[in-house]
Amino acid sequence: MSYDLYYWPFIPGRGEYVRLVLEAVGATYRDVAREEGEGAGMEAMTAGLKGRYGPQIPFAPPYLVDGEIVLSQTPVIVAYLGEKHGLAPALEADRLFARAVAVTTADFAAEIHDTHHPVGTGLYYDDQKDEARRRAEGFRNERAPKFLGWYQALLQANPSGPSQLLGSEISYVDLGLYHTVEGLKYAFPKLMARISGDYPQVMALCERVAALPAIAQYLASDRRMAFNEDGLFRHYPELDEA
Amino acid sequence: MSYDLYYWPFIPGRGEYVRLVLEAVGATYRDVAREEGEGAGMEAMTAGLKGRYGPQIPFAPPYLVDGEIVLSQTPVIVAYLGEKHGLAPALEADRLFARAVAVTTADFAAEIHDTHHPVGTGLYYDDQKDEARRRAEGFRNERAPKFLGWYQALLQANPSGPSQLLGSEISYVDLGLYHTVEGLKYAFPKLMARISGDYPQVMALCERVAALPAIAQYLASDRRMAFNEDGLFRHYPELDEA
Repeated sequence: MSYDLYYWPFIPGRGEYVRLVLEAVGATYRDVAREEGEGAGMEAMTAGLKGRYGPQIPFAPPYLVDGEIVLSQTPVIVAYLGEKHGLAPALEADRLFARAVAVTTADFAAEIHDTHHPVGTGLYYDDQKDEARRRAEGFRNERAPKFLGWYQALLQANPSGPSQLLGSEISYVDLGLYHTVEGLKYAFPKLMARISGDYPQVMALCERVAALPAIAQYLASDRRMAFNEDGLFRHYPELDEA
Repeated sequence: MSYDLYYWPFIPGRGEYVRLVLEAVGATYRDVAREEGEGAGMEAMTAGLKGRYGPQIPFAPPYLVDGEIVLSQTPVIVAYLGEKHGLAPALEADRLFARAVAVTTADFAAEIHDTHHPVGTGLYYDDQKDEARRRAEGFRNERAPKFLGWYQALLQANPSGPSQLLGSEISYVDLGLYHTVEGLKYAFPKLMARISGDYPQVMALCERVAALPAIAQYLASDRRMAFNEDGLFRHYPELDEA
């Protein structure tokens, strides 16, 4: 059985959170909008947003087609895959809490995005640079530490130890944290150089994730795209610390 | 069995999405931060954010305690309640898609919030009025029609008819749409007076939700709080249409 993933072909973006879970569980999948030919490419992606797959019309990419099931919204997709393929916590209370962690990670990513697009996604960055500078300041001083401190608190509170956010094994929410921290290091290298040391268990977990054999293999492959200034995480030096 | 809901006591906010589902299914619940005395009030809410309930530490209110289970993030809580109490679509594909609808509604609510707080939640509205005016313009012209048009498309694509978003009965995602439209009418009365007619099936569904006996009874009770300018949906005339 194979999954069809639909996401913008030129950026890692939110699609990357889904790819990491697919890769970690060793799933067979097509990255449809990155393929060429009939039934592929951006056109195929857009068709799904117009109802090609019936009444389940995604609001936006990424979405994932699994036979008759159309999954959308990143935190819903990763929870579905993680729970289905054994990459979710074992206990019911942890599984349900993992879903909330995934939504919080999506919110964190949205706030990171909004540092460069505080006024609107419909405008260019150049048309909102002043507002971005103000928003990024609050993000660096308050929001980033609040989110990172929360993950650190979860790690410290885990009765199975601080090697993963929930339960006794790496799960899909750990992959999401890893990718977000990678994005932060790309977008805010000076900020992260200064504050990473405040979250030693978060950073250690991210290293563990990157070293998982399936993930390490993926990161070294050409399936992994580089961050760039069209994506969710963008490096604009003027938004980082001085 | 009774639920404990924790949310800011002075605003409907995101907690209202949870209350509507609790009320619709006739659940017994405490609205803990709105109560007084030992183990209640804001102090009790804050204790949960500091780990009082163990390793499941919510990032922010609302959160809901169900015995040993701590649920957080609005879309996760409403899906849990809806699926548990028969207020979710019957088919698996619809149930999974409903979770994505709930996340999208939470995103929509966050964008409505950001019209009055585009620079940062840590600042007062008065300190970001100019940015808010710009962001609200894009929201009114592009984002609000995009979201409302998407709900309308779901209603039109539902093989069971346009009386509910998914499946053949009202579900928790319909309650979320209802509350968001109520919030929009409060925050942007002029905009909504002009464009509501473009989404007749959305508006008809909202009227159906308000007329459900359990919801109508709740709306008439003193448990229902009025919208106000400390909440998610705020009426600032300068952000509405001229």
